[in-house]
Amino acid sequence: MKIKNENDLLKYIQKTICTNSPNIIKSIGDDCAVLKINKNKCLVITTDTCLEGPHFTSDYLPNEIGYKSLATNLSDIAAMGCTPKYILMSLTLPKLENEWIKSFYKGVKKLVSKHKLTLIGGDTNRGPLNISIQVIGINKNKILYRNGARINDDIYVTGTLGSARAALMLAKTNKFKKEIKFFSKFLKMPQPRIEIGERISNIANSCIDISDGLMKDLRSILDSSKLGASIDLEKLPVHPLIRKIINPKKYYECILGGGEDYELCFTAPRKSRPTIQKISLATRIRITLIGKTTKENMSFLNNGRLQKFNFKGFDHFA
Amino acid sequence: MKIKNENDLLKYIQKTICTNSPNIIKSIGDDCAVLKINKNKCLVITTDTCLEGPHFTSDYLPNEIGYKSLATNLSDIAAMGCTPKYILMSLTLPKLENEWIKSFYKGVKKLVSKHKLTLIGGDTNRGPLNISIQVIGINKNKILYRNGARINDDIYVTGTLGSARAALMLAKTNKFKKEIKFFSKFLKMPQPRIEIGERISNIANSCIDISDGLMKDLRSILDSSKLGASIDLEKLPVHPLIRKIINPKKYYECILGGGEDYELCFTAPRKSRPTIQKISLATRIRITLIGKTTKENMSFLNNGRLQKFNFKGFDHFA
Repeated sequence: MKIKNENDLLKYIQKTICTNSPNIIKSIGDDCAVLKINKNKCLVITTDTCLEGPHFTSDYLPNEIGYKSLATNLSDIAAMGCTPKYILMSLTLPKLENEWIKSFYKGVKKLVSKHKLTLIGGDTNRGPLNISIQVIGINKNKILYRNGARINDDIYVTGTLGSARAALMLAKTNKFKKEIKFFSKFLKMPQPRIEIGERISNIANSCIDISDGLMKDLRSILDSSKLGASIDLEKLPVHPLIRKIINPKKYYECILGGGEDYELCFTAPRKSRPTIQKISLATRIRITLIGKTTKENMSFLNNGRLQKFNFKGFDHFA
Repeated sequence: MKIKNENDLLKYIQKTICTNSPNIIKSIGDDCAVLKINKNKCLVITTDTCLEGPHFTSDYLPNEIGYKSLATNLSDIAAMGCTPKYILMSLTLPKLENEWIKSFYKGVKKLVSKHKLTLIGGDTNRGPLNISIQVIGINKNKILYRNGARINDDIYVTGTLGSARAALMLAKTNKFKKEIKFFSKFLKMPQPRIEIGERISNIANSCIDISDGLMKDLRSILDSSKLGASIDLEKLPVHPLIRKIINPKKYYECILGGGEDYELCFTAPRKSRPTIQKISLATRIRITLIGKTTKENMSFLNNGRLQKFNFKGFDHFA
């Protein structure tokens, strides 16, 4: 087979290397691997690498790099409805620059303290900057997968969409200094939605974190659940500034095609609406109903009229 | 504090970030982290990154890179006396070159098949080549640590010492083509000593894998066990070709200071000698008694006469 993109690579690996064994409930292909350790308990394990270019740029402060590298991993644990516990860090650094290192760990520590994590292992090397982090979590309730969505499930997203991408889009202009600063917080310091993940784990049917854009990530839920969806564009939660200042031609690319929001997209049965509203109130995090799953196709409705898009989510190699 | 080398960095991390919690039996500072999952069972977890430069050079074939990246991680599991089960791989690749990728996974598969491993997760990115692998293992017997050595323990090493370093030393000359080819096998395709690790786990008191040179790695056992050692230089297992062709001035640097042999160095009580001999026979792997632990100092005896050395093991940043 010819490997042309990340998806092909994943398929090649699954075909070539053993990816299943008795205690592995979920192997490669979801946000985390799931390892059964006894009758009711599992460990969920994820690994994510952060690099200059795709994940951060030269204008990031070291503490923002440390924070974001860990946040993106924690977001994968949140997407499984689990609680992060332990982390390992493989750091490749060009040199031992004391100021850089101390600032970097300040960013890491922010999330370690907030989520009561323990750093249990790692590795340091000299070379082009590369931060590879692993997080191990545990399930308190049910574990959420991408493939659990059922027909006529409500589809929800947390927070707002497109704010991280707006920061990137605006940075290309020479205007909007104040707005860039505002949206950069979403890009550089995303909030992993651990608490929401934990609270929805017993009521949601499926979940994913939005790292590659709602279009691509929701598609992962639908493809693996063998379903379609109907999304109401006017319901998408978007910061009002985005509608004001993003080029209207790029508006939907910003909110549907833009990754790095690290919000959760999940599906749940209609009967859970009151509980989900309570969770939103208790956590003070917006949770928005944006559509529902259908038998097939993914369609976007703009005030009832079908709208088509031709952009895709992020692929490191496409 | 000022961070000048890997050791300082480790101390800085331990001081700054939480590295202990109730179910963590061993945190950063050993070959693996140890996570207790029930009364008798633990998971051992390690992560190691492979880079061009410190870990492989441009003359490595992709299948050798794949093999060695995984072998070095498996060696850490062997050093704990445990059995590797699951792996995760974070791959950063400059491009999706099909031939390279397929050869790389061929090397990975060799060890995956041999040790019946399951690949359960990973991540792919585009950037300067960086292979970060994690291995999760289980204990069948006791887990071996660096800090378990007792006074008057016998000190053993598996296989031979210095063969990997000999390949590097000879490569700098323009001679010895045949010998370079011979020693390159040790450098590029080290054998993780899983079977030995498993078999000695109930009798050894401490263990480490030799990745940075016997001098530095044995020192880790001694420092963490608060002991010294007396090593008989003439007992060190060395391939006879090394004595023949390595510059005599570099001989001990080659066998004591040279890393990447990925043999095991372990200590065990005197009473275990017959069992260890049986293990060596059963596995057909040489296990050599090279000295014993003492109250303090690390001394090297050359036919009874004290010999001093002034080289150190490998440090990525020193």
